[in-house]
Amino acid sequence: MQITDIREQSVAMGAAMRNAVIDFSKMTVSAVAVVTDVMRDGKPVIGYGFNSNGRYAQGEIIRARLAPRILALSSEEQQNAAGDNIDPARLRAAMLQNEKPGGHGERAVAVAAVEIALWDAAAKIADVPLWRMIGGDEAESRVFVYAAGGYYDAEKGILGLVEEVRGYLAQGYTWAKIKIGGASLEEDMRRIEAVLELLGGDGSRLAVDANGRFDLQTALKYSAAMAPYNLRWFEEPGDPLDYELNAEIVRNYPNAVATGENLLSLQDATNLIRHGALRRSTDYLQFDPALAYGVTETIAITAMMEAEGWSPRRFIPHGGNLLALALTGALNLGGCESYPGVFQPFGGFADDTPIEDGYVSLPDAPGIGFEKKAALYEVLLGLS
Amino acid sequence: MQITDIREQSVAMGAAMRNAVIDFSKMTVSAVAVVTDVMRDGKPVIGYGFNSNGRYAQGEIIRARLAPRILALSSEEQQNAAGDNIDPARLRAAMLQNEKPGGHGERAVAVAAVEIALWDAAAKIADVPLWRMIGGDEAESRVFVYAAGGYYDAEKGILGLVEEVRGYLAQGYTWAKIKIGGASLEEDMRRIEAVLELLGGDGSRLAVDANGRFDLQTALKYSAAMAPYNLRWFEEPGDPLDYELNAEIVRNYPNAVATGENLLSLQDATNLIRHGALRRSTDYLQFDPALAYGVTETIAITAMMEAEGWSPRRFIPHGGNLLALALTGALNLGGCESYPGVFQPFGGFADDTPIEDGYVSLPDAPGIGFEKKAALYEVLLGLS
Repeated sequence: MQITDIREQSVAMGAAMRNAVIDFSKMTVSAVAVVTDVMRDGKPVIGYGFNSNGRYAQGEIIRARLAPRILALSSEEQQNAAGDNIDPARLRAAMLQNEKPGGHGERAVAVAAVEIALWDAAAKIADVPLWRMIGGDEAESRVFVYAAGGYYDAEKGILGLVEEVRGYLAQGYTWAKIKIGGASLEEDMRRIEAVLELLGGDGSRLAVDANGRFDLQTALKYSAAMAPYNLRWFEEPGDPLDYELNAEIVRNYPNAVATGENLLSLQDATNLIRHGALRRSTDYLQFDPALAYGVTETIAITAMMEAEGWSPRRFIPHGGNLLALALTGALNLGGCESYPGVFQPFGGFADDTPIEDGYVSLPDAPGIGFEKKAALYEVLLGLS
Repeated sequence: MQITDIREQSVAMGAAMRNAVIDFSKMTVSAVAVVTDVMRDGKPVIGYGFNSNGRYAQGEIIRARLAPRILALSSEEQQNAAGDNIDPARLRAAMLQNEKPGGHGERAVAVAAVEIALWDAAAKIADVPLWRMIGGDEAESRVFVYAAGGYYDAEKGILGLVEEVRGYLAQGYTWAKIKIGGASLEEDMRRIEAVLELLGGDGSRLAVDANGRFDLQTALKYSAAMAPYNLRWFEEPGDPLDYELNAEIVRNYPNAVATGENLLSLQDATNLIRHGALRRSTDYLQFDPALAYGVTETIAITAMMEAEGWSPRRFIPHGGNLLALALTGALNLGGCESYPGVFQPFGGFADDTPIEDGYVSLPDAPGIGFEKKAALYEVLLGLS
């Protein structure tokens, strides 16, 4: 059993919208194929992976550093002890040879894209869905999802924003998230109030996301203005690595704070838990498996949270793709982000699993289930 | 005045040695040229830059993300308010458009390589050395340097290690630094004792570097074993982002701890100061300008240190190149690392500035002075 090739292609994500910080129109993603010599139905088993949105494609790191370290290993070195499958954790360690500690940025994204493909291949070789392979009997086959959208669009205006959220409800979602911080505080409050009116004033069904834009004073002003709405959460008030700022917001905002998508490693996640003053009973963590070194690191992050007294239900990963969904089911996380209609074809879930009452079923296919999303699978097949 | 081209080339660094964590034989560096339409002596002014060692070349980020954002700007947008030079701080901001906060890794390295070239061009256009341009009358034209080496080499053994350090003393250095953590504690103590014997038992002239390898228990064992030697510093005991571990070492080790080379941003540096329990009177900080977003970020890091009550003398940057030397002189830092004979041709200083009593003079040439190091300039000219 041997990995014979690792292929990468940079793919445009085609998302013409902006949040408080970035414009997604030039965003790219690395799509990865890990080709094995294991045959199924006369064809080699191929594992697929890609990184999540927001951090660009990482082809150079994959081609120059990560792939050669895996392909240099012997068949025995690529396998698990039983010799009946490839060993993603071992291959991940090989990818990190000759890499210095710290500086968790693009490398974490590149490793994630490849490591996800390794796990997809391993689950296909074992002929089980990844969520079942990792979660065993405890895995959940149906997972809560919420609709993340509400990007700024001058032409759409507040009426368009409300229509957008109405559309999510029609699709079966029960909560939504919209952006803040890309307009004045007054304009942002009008946006929130308009959506809350649609939701019958139920703040627990609406989250807001500042994408790390605010300094402390602005974040505190927003905290005070938003407190009466009892929103689901206030996401990324300030710089995601500014734990002291985060702690100050938490001390001044009565409702939930949510953060973590821009912390790309177990060590950064641990620092947030240690220094960010987040509350186990109130706040949410949103680490993104497809930005932060992949599956093995996400399992370790979840274990760290539990060791620190956090329920995995407080972890609702960023990303909105089939891999995040699989890990949510496997690790009994609290739910999974979803971006209806954007970040295509990488965002979204299987074609035959509609959203119902805010939940979606996990695909019952070997691997992560990318084959169950036709538009995505077509792109991945381009790597073959 | 316009930047007409930004070129990048990945160059092998040719350093066949290893520390406790990585083998440098496959290390690469991005060399960058920023070409302007400003003419001097009938030729266009070209600024040069490169990233520091340990984090690999970053051509894809430069070509796909950073360079297009600068080249898309108009002449006016590239210039300072007076219109008499390019504006590196403004161009740096342009490079960071559409980049999410957090995740400071390869991007910080790529921005550094380009931003250093922008500053080299700006100082050449102003016809002054960069250290004088930034530091003004307060700048120091002669800077303390220490010899970093003592890598593991099975063939060389302890005798070879002592010979290596003897060579540094003969070259004019007064302190040396050697690696620990790549052998057993007992073997590492024999290495330390052998070098100390050469140094007349003066621990203040010897630092040791674990390259972030140790867990807390191992770091504490080394702390206890090394305390009697009164070494200059114990560098990177554990994971560079594990502030709690760092704080625990500081509380248990009487002599200086030094760290920071693997923190690649102002925010990470601020977190270390806030959460790492380092002592203003004892410890050292080693942020690397050519890994951590470049000159502007290093000026900001130094200002943050001063605002937190730290003397800039406690900042002794990692890197061992002419850019780190220029910033050490400009910002009155405590000294600068040097890697005699390795990381060539990027490591080291001007050809005509020998080390004398542990000090080296800054090149009196416009820009950073890369032209004063023939082997380096030859590589950079390959970009023209």
